[in-house]
Amino acid sequence: MVTGWLHSWREMGGVSFLVLRDAWGTIQAVAETEEELSPLRTREAGVESVISIVGRVVAMPQAPGGVELHNLRIEVISPVSVAPIVPINKPKLTARVETLLDHAVVTNRHPTRRAILRLGAGAMQGFRASLNERGFTEIQTPKLVAGATESGASVFQVDYFGRPAYLAQSPQFYKQIMVGIFERVYEVGPVFRAEHHDTTRHINEYVSLDAEMGFIENHFTLMALLRSVLARIIQLFEEQYHAELRLLNVQTPVVPEQIPHIHFVEAQEQIYRLHGLDERAEPDLSPQGERWLGEWARQEFASDWLFVTGYPMSKRPFYTHPDPTRPAYSNSFDLLFRGTELVTGGQRLHRFEDYQAALAGAGLPSEAFESYLEAFRYGMPPHGGFAIGLERLLMQLTGVPNIRLATTFPRDVARLTP
Amino acid sequence: MVTGWLHSWREMGGVSFLVLRDAWGTIQAVAETEEELSPLRTREAGVESVISIVGRVVAMPQAPGGVELHNLRIEVISPVSVAPIVPINKPKLTARVETLLDHAVVTNRHPTRRAILRLGAGAMQGFRASLNERGFTEIQTPKLVAGATESGASVFQVDYFGRPAYLAQSPQFYKQIMVGIFERVYEVGPVFRAEHHDTTRHINEYVSLDAEMGFIENHFTLMALLRSVLARIIQLFEEQYHAELRLLNVQTPVVPEQIPHIHFVEAQEQIYRLHGLDERAEPDLSPQGERWLGEWARQEFASDWLFVTGYPMSKRPFYTHPDPTRPAYSNSFDLLFRGTELVTGGQRLHRFEDYQAALAGAGLPSEAFESYLEAFRYGMPPHGGFAIGLERLLMQLTGVPNIRLATTFPRDVARLTP
Repeated sequence: MVTGWLHSWREMGGVSFLVLRDAWGTIQAVAETEEELSPLRTREAGVESVISIVGRVVAMPQAPGGVELHNLRIEVISPVSVAPIVPINKPKLTARVETLLDHAVVTNRHPTRRAILRLGAGAMQGFRASLNERGFTEIQTPKLVAGATESGASVFQVDYFGRPAYLAQSPQFYKQIMVGIFERVYEVGPVFRAEHHDTTRHINEYVSLDAEMGFIENHFTLMALLRSVLARIIQLFEEQYHAELRLLNVQTPVVPEQIPHIHFVEAQEQIYRLHGLDERAEPDLSPQGERWLGEWARQEFASDWLFVTGYPMSKRPFYTHPDPTRPAYSNSFDLLFRGTELVTGGQRLHRFEDYQAALAGAGLPSEAFESYLEAFRYGMPPHGGFAIGLERLLMQLTGVPNIRLATTFPRDVARLTP
Repeated sequence: MVTGWLHSWREMGGVSFLVLRDAWGTIQAVAETEEELSPLRTREAGVESVISIVGRVVAMPQAPGGVELHNLRIEVISPVSVAPIVPINKPKLTARVETLLDHAVVTNRHPTRRAILRLGAGAMQGFRASLNERGFTEIQTPKLVAGATESGASVFQVDYFGRPAYLAQSPQFYKQIMVGIFERVYEVGPVFRAEHHDTTRHINEYVSLDAEMGFIENHFTLMALLRSVLARIIQLFEEQYHAELRLLNVQTPVVPEQIPHIHFVEAQEQIYRLHGLDERAEPDLSPQGERWLGEWARQEFASDWLFVTGYPMSKRPFYTHPDPTRPAYSNSFDLLFRGTELVTGGQRLHRFEDYQAALAGAGLPSEAFESYLEAFRYGMPPHGGFAIGLERLLMQLTGVPNIRLATTFPRDVARLTP
């Protein structure tokens, strides 16, 4: 017996071809008599009805799965008589993004949508596996926080029993604190950004894959770790998510033994040299500059990946560790994947005095950071980490045109449902 | 070279015994000269300083780890000159709970605190491993929701770009919807309850281990699944978290092949018969009744676990599936662990018409549940699931007297920091 959703129903010359879909694939069932179909007719059960079929298995090399069912006994479990607004039994989903999202509850059943979301599960699995193998401990840190925020990103305010609380925009402070407890930690969880972005690359709630590690040499320790993590995710995709990759026509990127890296200053020079765009007075790279760097990495190193290191301290948050040899630049990095920023990371300050000076320098009141500072007052090792945006990774890997399509039920400025 | 925190420093007869702590354990280092200690003296580095030690390894059967270090070369990485408010180098942490929580940033470094939190990581790992093995797909669902809530639990309100949103009090609706996509799903993530509880058993943000499964027979399918999940978690504790269990002096419970189960009506009869407490007119069990049932299960079945099935429909949320043979009772269950409720679960309605009737019966407006209902309009199989509270599990397993001590940084009515 097979159970699942009636994916499609075609009648040709008195014969009905039913395709049954479950979470793992589809199987074709062939009804040659009206009697076999009568349970569907009686209950007015059309596509998306949940049914079970008992039948004789017949080898049929050209059918999906290599077999089909004949001589059917059909049972209707949940009849559906209305057709979905967006047909989900066509190879391609062609509706507008808005329509796909409004009806995500059903459109996510489409095999291509399902495949993208399954890769999300695979990415989380690969992330955890690689870090578990390296002695990291998984943590879950509070999402309701009292206020102090680590960067300029705006935060959502919550009514917490009559007083204000905020939704954590990252587990940054907590994962650093937890380095004092487990040395190596990671977290997979939601983060919240109250930014008014309305672009194809931003959502206001997303899943962050965060890692933080103590006793590092500098940011290069973290870059080597990140390379291993990404290689493990890609390896897991190839081992366990082959069907999804094939369905989505995704070429998995090779992760080189050494991902090439270039210093921020040198990156700006390279952009100027190759394309004549002079950003050398800017404290950051432009999206166009990043795309050109991506092309350059592909040509020069045959790599989809490029680390840009040493961003100016002025553009990084207060806890960033400076480069001891060039203090205007930081021990931080971005990882570009196919010319777009995918991961941000770096070494953090670890001495109490350095935090006091950094907060004062940034004009931030140390009282608001009291608990955070307590960790450093009582001894922290050199440490750092990085954060991978899950949806960003899926978007760039699968090539969907909108990050909203890389998550189950996106949240943006206009969207809170489904 | 070993690196870590200076856990303790004892001087006896001109010899200094230093204990170095890292995330995995401790090692003793013995300094016989002042010269060896001079880096600590110069930097005024006391306990909790982060240091590295190079030394000669000497076998010492009575030392922790069986070795100690002699002829030390010490380097101070982050000196600490102030002692923590709560000493974390004593075998027991004896401060008041409030003090432990106020300074959790540091008190969580204590080996017993660390061990409990590590078991939390193990529980998440075992939960995922058991479900991955059974074809479940991991999901991450939105924590910011538009409003419709599945039970009477109060919710936190969020200012979402000028309009109200709420923090999800469970992934219930989304995990059910995702059964339509993956058939078998699980999620590990935060849930938020705006309840004014101030007890030792409630916190306002906790980690929920949620599973949901399609094509079940009834709630007994779920109970069998839950048994396997719990057995896998316990097995993983025994295989990989032996040191933590030993340190905490935890006896892991045996999970029997068949966890005994008793119907709600019969459970009330049993409580009355054995203890004379007549709750038979009540729609729920009292905590005292649950404790007595726990004792009874231990005596009668030698089991720490007991399923109570068939709770009255009147006490369960609107989506609960009734018992087809006794419609006033439900196809739901609670799992008692050592006499306390640990898990709640059950079969859900799966037919669109049943949802329309249930919402009308509960006086709930179907418009507020539009997206949720869309999943059922387009065909859902018989399904159900359960939710395990991670901190509740850790509390009952380790015997800590307050659930706040079973999480890193608890949130309660009065507490938003650290």
